[in-house]
Amino acid sequence: MRAWLPAWLSHYRRDWLAGDVVAGVVVTLLLVPQGLAYALVAGLPPAVGLYASLPPLLLYGLIGKSHAQSVGPMALTSLLAAATLARLAEPGSGEYLALAVWLALLSGAMLIALGLARLGFLADFLSLPVLSGFTSASALLIVLSQLAPLLGLHAQGASLPVLLMGLLEGLGRIDTAALAFGGAALLWLAGARRALPPALARTAPALAVLAALLAVRQAGWEGRLPVVGPVPSGLPSLALPVLPWGRLGELMLPAFFMALINYVQSLSVAQLLAAPRRERVEPDRELLALGVCNVGAGLFGGFPVTGGLTRSLVNAAAGANSQLASWVAAAGIALVLLFAGDALASLPLAVLAAIIVAAVAPSIRFGVLRQAWRADRADAVAFALTFALVLLLGVESGIVVGVLVSLGAWQWRSSRPHMAEVGRLPGTQHYRNVARFTAETLPGVLFLRVDESLYFGNARLVRDAVLERLSERPELTTLVLIMSAVNRLDVSAVAMLEWLDDSLAARGVTLALAEVKGPVAAVLARAGLLERFAGRHYLSTHEAWERFAAAPEFHI
Amino acid sequence: MRAWLPAWLSHYRRDWLAGDVVAGVVVTLLLVPQGLAYALVAGLPPAVGLYASLPPLLLYGLIGKSHAQSVGPMALTSLLAAATLARLAEPGSGEYLALAVWLALLSGAMLIALGLARLGFLADFLSLPVLSGFTSASALLIVLSQLAPLLGLHAQGASLPVLLMGLLEGLGRIDTAALAFGGAALLWLAGARRALPPALARTAPALAVLAALLAVRQAGWEGRLPVVGPVPSGLPSLALPVLPWGRLGELMLPAFFMALINYVQSLSVAQLLAAPRRERVEPDRELLALGVCNVGAGLFGGFPVTGGLTRSLVNAAAGANSQLASWVAAAGIALVLLFAGDALASLPLAVLAAIIVAAVAPSIRFGVLRQAWRADRADAVAFALTFALVLLLGVESGIVVGVLVSLGAWQWRSSRPHMAEVGRLPGTQHYRNVARFTAETLPGVLFLRVDESLYFGNARLVRDAVLERLSERPELTTLVLIMSAVNRLDVSAVAMLEWLDDSLAARGVTLALAEVKGPVAAVLARAGLLERFAGRHYLSTHEAWERFAAAPEFHI
Repeated sequence: MRAWLPAWLSHYRRDWLAGDVVAGVVVTLLLVPQGLAYALVAGLPPAVGLYASLPPLLLYGLIGKSHAQSVGPMALTSLLAAATLARLAEPGSGEYLALAVWLALLSGAMLIALGLARLGFLADFLSLPVLSGFTSASALLIVLSQLAPLLGLHAQGASLPVLLMGLLEGLGRIDTAALAFGGAALLWLAGARRALPPALARTAPALAVLAALLAVRQAGWEGRLPVVGPVPSGLPSLALPVLPWGRLGELMLPAFFMALINYVQSLSVAQLLAAPRRERVEPDRELLALGVCNVGAGLFGGFPVTGGLTRSLVNAAAGANSQLASWVAAAGIALVLLFAGDALASLPLAVLAAIIVAAVAPSIRFGVLRQAWRADRADAVAFALTFALVLLLGVESGIVVGVLVSLGAWQWRSSRPHMAEVGRLPGTQHYRNVARFTAETLPGVLFLRVDESLYFGNARLVRDAVLERLSERPELTTLVLIMSAVNRLDVSAVAMLEWLDDSLAARGVTLALAEVKGPVAAVLARAGLLERFAGRHYLSTHEAWERFAAAPEFHI
Repeated sequence: MRAWLPAWLSHYRRDWLAGDVVAGVVVTLLLVPQGLAYALVAGLPPAVGLYASLPPLLLYGLIGKSHAQSVGPMALTSLLAAATLARLAEPGSGEYLALAVWLALLSGAMLIALGLARLGFLADFLSLPVLSGFTSASALLIVLSQLAPLLGLHAQGASLPVLLMGLLEGLGRIDTAALAFGGAALLWLAGARRALPPALARTAPALAVLAALLAVRQAGWEGRLPVVGPVPSGLPSLALPVLPWGRLGELMLPAFFMALINYVQSLSVAQLLAAPRRERVEPDRELLALGVCNVGAGLFGGFPVTGGLTRSLVNAAAGANSQLASWVAAAGIALVLLFAGDALASLPLAVLAAIIVAAVAPSIRFGVLRQAWRADRADAVAFALTFALVLLLGVESGIVVGVLVSLGAWQWRSSRPHMAEVGRLPGTQHYRNVARFTAETLPGVLFLRVDESLYFGNARLVRDAVLERLSERPELTTLVLIMSAVNRLDVSAVAMLEWLDDSLAARGVTLALAEVKGPVAAVLARAGLLERFAGRHYLSTHEAWERFAAAPEFHI
């Protein structure tokens, strides 16, 4: 029986309870406005955001490993969903909603498959600059997309030109009542973040919702400005909308893409939460849990979900000790769905827009760009390109180009390796770049260190660089290639070494190898090159040095 | 005046002359049947092969650097041209010919542009296994495509299924006269290669052509089997066929592709020829020369050309001392075009097909596959995939997938770095993998060497592996990260190191760095990490060892 319980439940400690309950209530207060708001970002009826919140809270509690991870609707995920769905169906249509559900189901299934196949490492190919550029540009897009509801306008879109056009067209039709509610909520949220103690600031969005509901009712303004509208009372029920096969095919690539982004986001939250408690994050388990959460959200009419950074930090700070906090929040959401649906109906959309803007604006950050510019120009270019293309072309094209740029730049650099002539630091057994250190050299012997694994991408260049150095210094009779930084070797590089050895032999120059690592030696052995280099293959640079210093005139 | 002459001409030595003239004549005898035959492979009238031969010989002599390089029609290039052109126009049509001319012009222009922009390194991304797989599969396709003319059938195509279908359909209509000529020529060529001295074997194709022409005339069989047909007498003239812009656009990608393949081929021939003479090959100059040759071929109604391996080796072996040999061959081709056009008209196509099969069959080689299978499985997969896809999908898709597989495999491996705990070889200052060598360790201190540059693709994995080792060995108080094999560092890896340092500090473990290379230290400095690691950053592993061996209880 105990084996079927989640680990945290089977050794639950009574003193965790208070913290878990408080955290669950705080998360509920945060999640209700977030759920409604992020459904709007995704172009869906606000109630869908609450449906999408309930199953993940329950399921993550069952199989998730992170004590404070709070899986549910997220701004970025919703923007991604909107970008995909707006291409495939009319926002507001039944088909649009059905596609949203299937996007959650498919991306969930893919997450589960990736977890079972242990392919979580795929997410590693999203570099930090690409992710930051993507997050910042997406946050900017989300803020811009919320200007329309803040001003009482209708506008949809997931790229900068479309959003700006929509805003410009609507400028003459600004709804002052919406603007008043939205502006007041924005000022309150910004003020609360600065002035209130953190514990209270977390409930600021819930207070804004409450105040707005009271104000609308008090003033009798229900019909005068855009509001959330009916939230059907009752829990979500299991239902699977039918879609033709062709439509599912169109969702495959976006679902894969969404799975990766949601996974990266969820994983980084889990790692952040685990660090201070010295918990170990199992990426493949996290994949599995997130996949099940998404399938759960989809089966109950929701849309894609992931681990939210703010919400999870709030959960942890409010005292969550275990996944029970998530179950308490689930109960809270269920209560809201059962009893508070009618009350939420007259909530102005402008207030939700203000909550989104306040939540997302801090994510527009250029710190990584500055850091990248100093440390690595290619990374800075990857950030800038991703940022610009997400804004101009949309989220998917932007991130795909960003990933290709990071991969291409890394590969390009590996094709132009750093090579250094090394010499001995006087009186030691240490060998360093003669251009950076005062080092001794041996007459007639060139000690050359190649700072890169050798493969097809750089084999020709390395060979040419070696030949160039030799023709510049005709007095050389020996070349010692120091392989301490050569981590791998492919067949093209093996062929190059053979060619180089023949070519140097024809010039009367001996080629010797030093510091060949285990894996590289294994490749040389399998290719039959260890025999060729027998007697010219030294364990250390120092061994080679002593050998050639002792008998400079004698070369094997 | 002298400055305008090619370098070889301005210091021409009289004793080169005999060798150059003999080589030029031998190349002419080889090039006439090759030119006719490779035009057929490209789906063009045989005479186009002769037009395409003349300008490159003259132009390469003017600006090319390799003494024996013989630029002209090539089997692989012709197959590539056929694969492209057959998609765009009806073989035999005027448009097909015009597209062939523009393919030469555009790929020539691209080669020149690549040469001026010094982008020759792009060709390095064709790894040896991909190139070998491509060459072997293409050779097999060429042999299969020549079975049709050998049997007197008509068949066109550039992929295995199409070729096999064509052959199967035609099986009932085999032309015995064509088969007799083709079979006899094939036997003669195969026998000549084995039995004749090399000097004579080179002229075997020309002798086959002569014998076939005499036999056809003697027997009066002109009308009874497919022959070359009219070869208009006279030199090719300058002419530019007009094509609509849209068609040119369709040629862009294939032209780029052809430029790369032709460049790789030409460059490897130039390097092979240069090696024994210790000449230096300038890749960008080679690009330029090949580009001019292709533009020249196109302007005079030819199709794409490149440096041919066999022909160049024949040129060198026949005694070519300078580019004058190419000019002699150009004169030979001009004489053939002026006076021997009528005589060639009755040459059976089956004989040309036999010449192609004999020339190309030795290129079907699996040596690299065997070598790659032993040395590097990913390379073997790249070979096999390229080979299979070239056969099944066609030359372009095959090589593109091959390149992506090699790049992806290399990148994938860099994402799973080898890490080794190292210890001191007793009594020395050398540190080696404790799993491979008998080495001392220090209690409480882990010396860990990461055998890969650190970047977004492996940052998380390295971090997790470090944390895993630390949690397995709770007695550790110090981790020395040996960076001798870390050649580069990106922003994601910098962030990982910061995170790791914080995380280890929280566990009471000191993180120290050793053997940080110049370029990596520069990145750390720019990112502000050198200050963070001040006092925990050792020049050598030995320095770190002595430091921690001296005061094991004291950790900064």
